[in-house]
Amino acid sequence: MVEKDFVKSVTAMEEDFAQWYTDVVTKADLVDYSSVRGSMIIRPYGYALWENIQQALDGRIKATGHENVYMPLFIPESLLEKEKDHIAGFAPEVAWVTHGGSEELAERLCVRPTSEVLFCEHYKNIIHSYRDLPKLYNQWANVVRWEKTTRPFLRTLEFLWQEGHTAHETDEDAHDETKRMLDVYADVLENVLAIPVIKGQKTEKEKFAGAKFTYTVESLMHDGKALQSATSHHLGDGFAKAFGIQYLDREGKLQYVHQTSWGFTTRVIGAMIMVHGDDRGLIMPPKTAPTQVMIVPVAQHKEGVLDFAYKLKKQLSASFRTGIDASDKKPGWKYNEYEMKGVPVRLEAGPRDIEKNQVVLVRRDTGEKMFVALEELEARLAALLDEIQGNLYNRAKELLEKKTSKAADLGEFKASLEKNPGMIKAMWCGKRECEDKIKEETGATSRCIPFEQERVSDSCVCCGEKAESMVVWAKAY
Amino acid sequence: MVEKDFVKSVTAMEEDFAQWYTDVVTKADLVDYSSVRGSMIIRPYGYALWENIQQALDGRIKATGHENVYMPLFIPESLLEKEKDHIAGFAPEVAWVTHGGSEELAERLCVRPTSEVLFCEHYKNIIHSYRDLPKLYNQWANVVRWEKTTRPFLRTLEFLWQEGHTAHETDEDAHDETKRMLDVYADVLENVLAIPVIKGQKTEKEKFAGAKFTYTVESLMHDGKALQSATSHHLGDGFAKAFGIQYLDREGKLQYVHQTSWGFTTRVIGAMIMVHGDDRGLIMPPKTAPTQVMIVPVAQHKEGVLDFAYKLKKQLSASFRTGIDASDKKPGWKYNEYEMKGVPVRLEAGPRDIEKNQVVLVRRDTGEKMFVALEELEARLAALLDEIQGNLYNRAKELLEKKTSKAADLGEFKASLEKNPGMIKAMWCGKRECEDKIKEETGATSRCIPFEQERVSDSCVCCGEKAESMVVWAKAY
Repeated sequence: MVEKDFVKSVTAMEEDFAQWYTDVVTKADLVDYSSVRGSMIIRPYGYALWENIQQALDGRIKATGHENVYMPLFIPESLLEKEKDHIAGFAPEVAWVTHGGSEELAERLCVRPTSEVLFCEHYKNIIHSYRDLPKLYNQWANVVRWEKTTRPFLRTLEFLWQEGHTAHETDEDAHDETKRMLDVYADVLENVLAIPVIKGQKTEKEKFAGAKFTYTVESLMHDGKALQSATSHHLGDGFAKAFGIQYLDREGKLQYVHQTSWGFTTRVIGAMIMVHGDDRGLIMPPKTAPTQVMIVPVAQHKEGVLDFAYKLKKQLSASFRTGIDASDKKPGWKYNEYEMKGVPVRLEAGPRDIEKNQVVLVRRDTGEKMFVALEELEARLAALLDEIQGNLYNRAKELLEKKTSKAADLGEFKASLEKNPGMIKAMWCGKRECEDKIKEETGATSRCIPFEQERVSDSCVCCGEKAESMVVWAKAY
Repeated sequence: MVEKDFVKSVTAMEEDFAQWYTDVVTKADLVDYSSVRGSMIIRPYGYALWENIQQALDGRIKATGHENVYMPLFIPESLLEKEKDHIAGFAPEVAWVTHGGSEELAERLCVRPTSEVLFCEHYKNIIHSYRDLPKLYNQWANVVRWEKTTRPFLRTLEFLWQEGHTAHETDEDAHDETKRMLDVYADVLENVLAIPVIKGQKTEKEKFAGAKFTYTVESLMHDGKALQSATSHHLGDGFAKAFGIQYLDREGKLQYVHQTSWGFTTRVIGAMIMVHGDDRGLIMPPKTAPTQVMIVPVAQHKEGVLDFAYKLKKQLSASFRTGIDASDKKPGWKYNEYEMKGVPVRLEAGPRDIEKNQVVLVRRDTGEKMFVALEELEARLAALLDEIQGNLYNRAKELLEKKTSKAADLGEFKASLEKNPGMIKAMWCGKRECEDKIKEETGATSRCIPFEQERVSDSCVCCGEKAESMVVWAKAY
């Protein structure tokens, strides 16, 4: 067994993007593997990141009037089967509990892949009158989907998420809620994770099993593949009818409620890595970074250096998530380590800096190095973290624009995907056959029908018939 | 379907304590049942309570140097079997996943009842040198134990908890950690939940499966039954040997690590209810209460009342978790509702109060009513909430003392349990047979060997032989 004091490195993105990703998630200590196939261990650095994201989202979920609850992990098979489209969509990917202790169960229990049916059963119990509406519930939970091939954060057997479930008097109220929560997701993705998104509606083929329609926020990774970052579903009254969730309206008539559901998962950590990272590892947007500033003492054996560094740590901790590495490892090792971990700002302080009443700040996103006088430190750091946050967003936005092409026919479509892998804007007739054919011939799927429509051409990119709408297509995770 | 504008009430404690408990958890809107046997739905009011408790505990867990992680939900059968005492203890109560989608699994997966073995596998992977120690990890998660008879919060198929898992260089370090975390639990129970506890060690019979020994905090409910409120286990190096978790020590020699684990669950909500509640429902300690002050406008149809009430709500929300009920329900209904829910302080404000620049405060714990001038409101409320918190603790402490008896022989033991159900302090020889016999003859189990020992008599309460220590016994949940 050797001391692990070597310098870490990752496979270059250009060489093998998938390997780059795997290297980053493990070498930045975000995850570890276990003997549980397809599941991941979220390590302290990865979990602290998730806690920051959770906090940002949970605050917004509560500020929009929602309350957190907790539903059971298990769903009896007969309950899952009540809404036919829903069970058809989820049955192939659920894990089944068949034994409790040594006893075989009379009815199998599925480990929740999502909790619509549990909320529906509860809503039937607690909703009686229009006075009980809306019900705006959310839960933070783990869910399980029996996936064949898995990758940390992006697709795992088990993942963490929040799932919102709401019930409303009218279809319009439910529609407003569906939009509102999509906007909340877009806000967190763009303003906290610094990931620009395209908002739109999923096609019939791609919508949630059991929904009337699904809204989505789509983002683009460094390798030109898209990632569905969060979805918000208008469930209509389909579940209400299957479960008998009725209320007495203002005129005393029995009506079915109108429902929504919406989810946001640990998958966004994968998006964050693939949008911002580089060949030296992770780059964390300051708003999500577990450590925003990492202090590395220079020539720490010299008198006064460590005292100075710890004093700074204490001082800065009042305003920033501040770390210090005073271990006996070499500064070079430390620089490499916190670059790998994507800490937004490194602060170096050695004897000469102490003499001059200054420190050195180094940006992770640009590598820029600056000398900052002590009396300006807090103000400069605050401004710098904002600047990094903004820069990461802008860089990602530029990438998205650069990697978005337009296509009028399948020839152009394929050429674009080949030459500049990314999003393709192209018109669509609305028919499932064309959507299937495009996927078959190009590997790209419909990501969404963006809310912001453009008239790219007059006719469907596939069949040439009258176009109904512009769709954004891409190969996707 | 009728408008639910009736006054709620619960079964009297003296009449039927178990029914009183069930009435309170459902009528105070803490939980609902579902078609999932033995599981509970934690409703918004119950979950907000849990979030407050979590926040208090999580802050202390982090302040003592621990980091949060997340481990998989499933454990392969072969992994669970690695530590023999552990699997023997848990096998009868685990749920088994045997199918994923339509495919039968080659190896069964157990739904975690606790995660020692997953942490051990991970620790083997990441611990190499004494420099990697201690590892101080914690996770917030759901766990499943296949219980036959269940009751909300107290014993459910699935419950929420945190489980700490740590690894240390020496047995002594692990011992210190075991004590430290028991103290953290006692602090949260006594100073946040206002529940006095007895700290001590479990007997061999009652210790955690696979542990060297188990520390516990025990508390006493209103009906004289005890409840194990949290436990902290010294695991010794048994798991380390079973899993091969070794490190190079400061002399370059391979050593096994020494481990601990400790857990605190949603069960404490059951304790909180049964320690503080009364025949009008819940009583929430202010530090955990989702709503600390509930504003009930009086004669709210009169001009200015609602404006005044909403202004107060906004003003008080800066310092207190403040609610307002401006629904068209009758004040009497509202008073009853928030008494049932145990809101520590009710604030009434009507036209005459507005005129006099005052409000009325009503304490939930004593029923005391007081008129408070507006300019003193914040200060008085802050003091009042502290006073209520202290009063609840003191009342519970008095109850614990009143319901604690001493016994020198089995005759006294039985008579005490009969006359004054509660904790019995009695000497014990240390033999399993006496422990078993006491349980068989009295129904009481050993709760713990308290750290604070008293010499109640000279010989074992059961066999009359030389006593080894004083044990606290009680019938328990």
